[in-house]
Amino acid sequence: MNNFEFYSPTDFVFGRNAEIQVGKLAKRFGGSKLLVTYGGGHVLRSGLLAHIEDVLRSSGLDYVLYGGIQPNPTDESVYEGIHVARANNIDMVLAVGGGSVIDASKAIAAGAPYDGDFWDFYSGKKVVDFALPIGVVLTIPAAGSEGSGNTVVTQVSTKKKVSIRTPYWLRPKFAVMNPELTFSLPAYQTAAGATDMMAHIMERYFTNTPHTEVADAVGEGVMRTIIEVTPRVLEAPEDYDARAALMWCGTLAHNGICGTGNEEDWASHGMEHELSAFYGVTHGAGLAVVFPAWLTYMAEHNPHKLVKWAKNVWGAETPAEGISRFKAWLHSIGMPTSIRELGIKDFDLETINEHVHVTKGEIFGAYLPLDRERTREIYKIALES
Amino acid sequence: MNNFEFYSPTDFVFGRNAEIQVGKLAKRFGGSKLLVTYGGGHVLRSGLLAHIEDVLRSSGLDYVLYGGIQPNPTDESVYEGIHVARANNIDMVLAVGGGSVIDASKAIAAGAPYDGDFWDFYSGKKVVDFALPIGVVLTIPAAGSEGSGNTVVTQVSTKKKVSIRTPYWLRPKFAVMNPELTFSLPAYQTAAGATDMMAHIMERYFTNTPHTEVADAVGEGVMRTIIEVTPRVLEAPEDYDARAALMWCGTLAHNGICGTGNEEDWASHGMEHELSAFYGVTHGAGLAVVFPAWLTYMAEHNPHKLVKWAKNVWGAETPAEGISRFKAWLHSIGMPTSIRELGIKDFDLETINEHVHVTKGEIFGAYLPLDRERTREIYKIALES
Repeated sequence: MNNFEFYSPTDFVFGRNAEIQVGKLAKRFGGSKLLVTYGGGHVLRSGLLAHIEDVLRSSGLDYVLYGGIQPNPTDESVYEGIHVARANNIDMVLAVGGGSVIDASKAIAAGAPYDGDFWDFYSGKKVVDFALPIGVVLTIPAAGSEGSGNTVVTQVSTKKKVSIRTPYWLRPKFAVMNPELTFSLPAYQTAAGATDMMAHIMERYFTNTPHTEVADAVGEGVMRTIIEVTPRVLEAPEDYDARAALMWCGTLAHNGICGTGNEEDWASHGMEHELSAFYGVTHGAGLAVVFPAWLTYMAEHNPHKLVKWAKNVWGAETPAEGISRFKAWLHSIGMPTSIRELGIKDFDLETINEHVHVTKGEIFGAYLPLDRERTREIYKIALES
Repeated sequence: MNNFEFYSPTDFVFGRNAEIQVGKLAKRFGGSKLLVTYGGGHVLRSGLLAHIEDVLRSSGLDYVLYGGIQPNPTDESVYEGIHVARANNIDMVLAVGGGSVIDASKAIAAGAPYDGDFWDFYSGKKVVDFALPIGVVLTIPAAGSEGSGNTVVTQVSTKKKVSIRTPYWLRPKFAVMNPELTFSLPAYQTAAGATDMMAHIMERYFTNTPHTEVADAVGEGVMRTIIEVTPRVLEAPEDYDARAALMWCGTLAHNGICGTGNEEDWASHGMEHELSAFYGVTHGAGLAVVFPAWLTYMAEHNPHKLVKWAKNVWGAETPAEGISRFKAWLHSIGMPTSIRELGIKDFDLETINEHVHVTKGEIFGAYLPLDRERTREIYKIALES
């Protein structure tokens, strides 16, 4: 087990009607004038945004709305949000949405009080050393951003989709999580979210660090739970308990508890980010394509941890059998497992393969560091399989 | 799954030499003049206390020492600590030790700034609504107090051993956890600590709340890990990775992650507290006696969750077989499983049975609420088995 720091200070308020506590929580963590961020029309149509506004008003809190944040959020959305935050002397950002809204909100929270260009944080020029407090009302269980210090933003001009992690400043102070708010989430988004959760655990689980018994045990348990409850949610979208289990799994998959003491990998996320940046695919669906291909490559070149994963997560005798069950599960929940199934017809392997190394570096990943040759092989497997 | 709030804001700094970060952490969380609390001579003899003092001094922090806190800490220790804290205008309490030192330190941290008698918090007269920040250097993995909002103190005059839980104020701000500091922990304390961890998970796991898949999966994984690594630690006390796994399990067993959404039980802890208050036994060893008896009673009167526990934790077909394996494991790590083996020769069943209901109430426990008749039966099983 490697040395680690585990700091997950988010106050998770979970359950039916949890959103009525948002005013109390905003005040507890020092908010008085909030920037309420959201994405498309769903939170408007469902009445959720109006309900949140009611709660804030009745708690005596001032707020400004900032909507229209798109999936795979762009630097342009962030610049505009920073402008609104500064113009209104905002002291807290409240994200009402899923990973994209939360990730953009983190960038706004770090960028608004910063003198320079917020992209400095994403380009590596500067490390976040202050941010406005962030609160969350979660509507899409998937990215785990409600409990993580991570944020991913795409720079439009370069198509670079960049992830940064600054746990001390970017972990939300609180996250309100009502599983009922996810009843209306379409099957495809639900399944893509479940796939993203699986990937968040697997990026940590596949490690060469010896003696990661505790993190493995927790991760395997959460993976098995995701595998079990996702079909139940798809079968009965208003099954509260299945929705609740899936929602909480999404947080545990990414708040760090599944990776304590591990050297983490994150190569599959890096390779997927190219697919969503270039072809606009849903992140979770992209992972459903990239991760099995990555596993297939690893089964040949570094199988040791796949043996444990196959056995303990899938009850399988061999890595190949584990991968096969994983792919069958992905298909059963409506996910693609190849670039063809993902609907990308004009996949430009060489351009993508070049760009992933421009974004992520000459060599990236820890379980088996990937150079151009290896990423090319993995993209090829993803294309064919 | 029930509604829940999960708030575990402790900054866990884990690994070799972690204690050199204690000055930085104390400053991060607002400490300038610390009360450094500890127990017996071990932290003196090992040089740990002197090392911590060096780190604090070189960080420019002022501090006062307060030692001599005994296992199963008493209200007398707490009164004295509060006196020292007030006399020195302390603004943070740094506990160097295990559960007893940390629990007493929490009481001091809540009591020092409080106008009245700190026992008000334990008698239920008053809820903690402010406390000095608490830091921890953990030396005994067992109680999980480094990550919990709980504290247990015994009132000497009444022999009442009372537990309270105030997560918002009593969770330590940081916990420094170096597994090497536990290399010298004697086998008996190590095994009692492992038993305490198992009990912390089981108090949460045995619930009638339906659909606790996530908490169950995490709890089962941590239990299986404790079962696996404890014999390794006893076999090779300086096996860093096994010590590390056991230490981290102790935190996860009690920081709440294994009980998210469950109605918890805690009857076995209540029944054990009488044994340590009256006979001075080690808490974990007392649990090794009480819990199997409680399980044996439940196998007859409310077995449903025991079936899952037996299967998923012990690979057993029936509750009886699971209990039998649990007892065999306890014996294998040197724990007693009966009041006789615990060395209590003059066990006064009726007095203890009366007293547990004075302390805990006429009926306590949630999985199967226990009245006098039921606790008597369970104590009888503990005596005989």
